[in-house]
Amino acid sequence: MIIGKVIGTLVSTRKLNNLVGSKFLVIESASNMGTDKRIVAVDQVGAGIGDFVLVALGSAARIGALKEASIDAAVVGIIDDENDILDTF
Amino acid sequence: MIIGKVIGTLVSTRKLNNLVGSKFLVIESASNMGTDKRIVAVDQVGAGIGDFVLVALGSAARIGALKEASIDAAVVGIIDDENDILDTF
Amino acid sequence: MIIGKVIGTLVSTRKLNNLVGSKFLVIESASNMGTDKRIVAVDQVGAGIGDFVLVALGSAARIGALKEASIDAAVVGIIDDENDILDTF
Amino acid sequence: MIIGKVIGTLVSTRKLNNLVGSKFLVIESASNMGTDKRIVAVDQVGAGIGDFVLVALGSAARIGALKEASIDAAVVGIIDDENDILDTF
Amino acid sequence: MIIGKVIGTLVSTRKLNNLVGSKFLVIESASNMGTDKRIVAVDQVGAGIGDFVLVALGSAARIGALKEASIDAAVVGIIDDENDILDTF
Repeated sequence: MIIGKVIGTLVSTRKLNNLVGSKFLVIESASNMGTDKRIVAVDQVGAGIGDFVLVALGSAARIGALKEASIDAAVVGIIDDENDILDTF
Repeated sequence: MIIGKVIGTLVSTRKLNNLVGSKFLVIESASNMGTDKRIVAVDQVGAGIGDFVLVALGSAARIGALKEASIDAAVVGIIDDENDILDTF
Repeated sequence: MIIGKVIGTLVSTRKLNNLVGSKFLVIESASNMGTDKRIVAVDQVGAGIGDFVLVALGSAARIGALKEASIDAAVVGIIDDENDILDTF
Repeated sequence: MIIGKVIGTLVSTRKLNNLVGSKFLVIESASNMGTDKRIVAVDQVGAGIGDFVLVALGSAARIGALKEASIDAAVVGIIDDENDILDTF
Repeated sequence: MIIGKVIGTLVSTRKLNNLVGSKFLVIESASNMGTDKRIVAVDQVGAGIGDFVLVALGSAARIGALKEASIDAAVVGIIDDENDILDTF
């Protein structure tokens, strides 16, 4: 998984039916994580803008409730203490 | 998922049977998305040249109708307001 | 999927049984595609050296006839008109 | 798999239920491994800070006990002799 | 798949049970292959140090005998004639 910060949301009205109800978050990856730059991930834990989060990539994003959604990235946890991860940004 | 812009289409007459009927779009990835450069994705939402779209990568591209197609990227949503994502290009 | 050009073939006598009969092609990826550099892909459409092709990566390579082959890349289509994609090289 | 060094741990109270009980390790990838930079992986072998470890990426991380966890990286082995791999850092 | 050269082996005594018996090879990827740098792959064809090999990445590594092993890379073939691939290094 990678660490990132939620920096925005995204609205798509015309999308696959299996994505209806999904909340799309724009994530800024921590600069020294395996995947740099940004990614769009579906929220699974109620994350909001400014939160530092754990993002699962690939098929891991669909484990559980989103098994039939066309997604390759999901926010799966919110990091408790941002001080623990500041050196990764 | 990544954000991209549809910049062209691609024709392949000699292809796997499971790709017959698929519309191939050339996508220019937003420059600060996880995957830069371009990718070829199959359209699932009626996207056209110039549209800003959401692209699902990997096995996510095959969720739903395209389960048996040999594809690793699909356009799964069209972004409503390009102003929301201009800073990602 | 990515766009590439077939630039060579590869022979491996000592290989997994599930790869017997597979034709290995060395693909030069188009320089501004998501994956740059080269990759080895199994031919599924009768492609030859010099052809511009569509390459499916990851589990997409095994959809259909090659379900039980240890491959992560396959040529799934030949591009009709190379003029359409020259700006990607 | 990649070789990495465990450099920290991560706490996330608000996370998916399928991640309860998982120990998140921050891994510094060996600098000349396929994936550079850092990654967050779930511990499967009792690794601790300072250990040099083998990390499985993607769906490989969920083989076995963690089949239903939303993870894309797991520590699957501890390297016996760090001298064997020092030239990879 | 990528082309690489076997440059070393790796010993991990404390590892997942599903990895017992696996031989870990350190592979130096050919410099102009899709994945540069090094990777750790499980041997499936009796490869040794110095061999030029074909490496399958991702879930492809687990096709066949290693279905239940926590691996994301496997050596699936030995290249017959290294002269065919020298220009990839």
